[in-house]
Amino acid sequence: MAGESALSLDNPVFRAFVTYATVVVVKTMLMSVVTAFHRFKNMAFANPEDSAGFKDKEGGRLRPVSNDMVERVRRCHLNDLENVIPFVLIGLLYVTTSPNLSTAVLHFRLFAGARLFHSVAYLLPLPQPSRALGFFIGYFSTFSMAYSIFSKIGLAL
Amino acid sequence: MAGESALSLDNPVFRAFVTYATVVVVKTMLMSVVTAFHRFKNMAFANPEDSAGFKDKEGGRLRPVSNDMVERVRRCHLNDLENVIPFVLIGLLYVTTSPNLSTAVLHFRLFAGARLFHSVAYLLPLPQPSRALGFFIGYFSTFSMAYSIFSKIGLAL
Amino acid sequence: MAGESALSLDNPVFRAFVTYATVVVVKTMLMSVVTAFHRFKNMAFANPEDSAGFKDKEGGRLRPVSNDMVERVRRCHLNDLENVIPFVLIGLLYVTTSPNLSTAVLHFRLFAGARLFHSVAYLLPLPQPSRALGFFIGYFSTFSMAYSIFSKIGLAL
Repeated sequence: MAGESALSLDNPVFRAFVTYATVVVVKTMLMSVVTAFHRFKNMAFANPEDSAGFKDKEGGRLRPVSNDMVERVRRCHLNDLENVIPFVLIGLLYVTTSPNLSTAVLHFRLFAGARLFHSVAYLLPLPQPSRALGFFIGYFSTFSMAYSIFSKIGLAL
Repeated sequence: MAGESALSLDNPVFRAFVTYATVVVVKTMLMSVVTAFHRFKNMAFANPEDSAGFKDKEGGRLRPVSNDMVERVRRCHLNDLENVIPFVLIGLLYVTTSPNLSTAVLHFRLFAGARLFHSVAYLLPLPQPSRALGFFIGYFSTFSMAYSIFSKIGLAL
Repeated sequence: MAGESALSLDNPVFRAFVTYATVVVVKTMLMSVVTAFHRFKNMAFANPEDSAGFKDKEGGRLRPVSNDMVERVRRCHLNDLENVIPFVLIGLLYVTTSPNLSTAVLHFRLFAGARLFHSVAYLLPLPQPSRALGFFIGYFSTFSMAYSIFSKIGLAL
């Protein structure tokens, strides 16, 4: 019912995928730390229990408050979830279609590079269309892998 | 230490999974484009750098603003992340438990059909309980696969 | 081009991973039901079509409204997406690097236990640093697996 799997470290395409997928997932996870940093820096917490140990400038109780930089980091984090997770899922399925090694690595590199640039462009921020460029290169890289999957196995629903 | 894997295109269950998983992930990713469309249509941007090139009706600087349709699309996108990603992850693990082909394909089809309907119901919008119906069919489809996994391998924690 | 895969139920590491990964993904999905419960309890809906069948206390039309408890559950759900999904993705790749069984199971157990505790701490809520503790144990568990992946295959970009 099943044969050899491409999802083995003996397969250089999978090996490259593991590297790039881990890098972009770790990058996404680091956004939690960046969010926490800006929450403490700006004393902008989302929950009453988080700010319970802090006082405001008049020595009163600190209340949950929104902060522009915190919200910016959170939008960047959510955008990562919306793009990095689909990349890893589509990429994993793409690896099982036995793509050409250099073509596959090109997709992985473009995606990883574009998303790192996207984060820098979002957090500094850089003027547009910097962030849009990072977004679309990553986006099309994932779409190109999805297209390649359907080219290989067809689209029989 | 490990034997044959079910995660090969030689396995018709995995082949079907690849098709449906790619379809629903691509559908989820398309929500980014729908969001961008409504941001431009309504001139409702989340970041100052995004609206920097545009003027408001009085020729002044355009400020970030919230828009009902943009927020609707974003809720739909987030709901997809909350449901489509778990489907793909649980589905992938489910495939390794060697389920019956027609049972598996039924789960995949129900999920994919329900989520496409869910998006239509959310974006038009259709009156409730249309969207709820789409949500729950997809939800129970994923839960049914999780239940099937535990039936097969037990729940030894 | 590819050899045996570790992603088979014959591999006890993968078998343990399937169990814990399914548990934490199901736990994440249950947050949708908790959100819905609090939306109905507090009559706090996100969409006009959701509240169309309900009247407010004066018998007028019920409007979409924000509610503290609903927003708390949603933050908990989003935090799960930001942490549980990376755990499952990194964990799956980690399994392919043939880790030691007891080391791997320790990672899976710590993560699953920490995230269950995180949800309880978020929803009750428990005073800090309860939730922070749950968060960081889960966070470092996933990072430790990522580190282990790079130790095994290097970081050739």
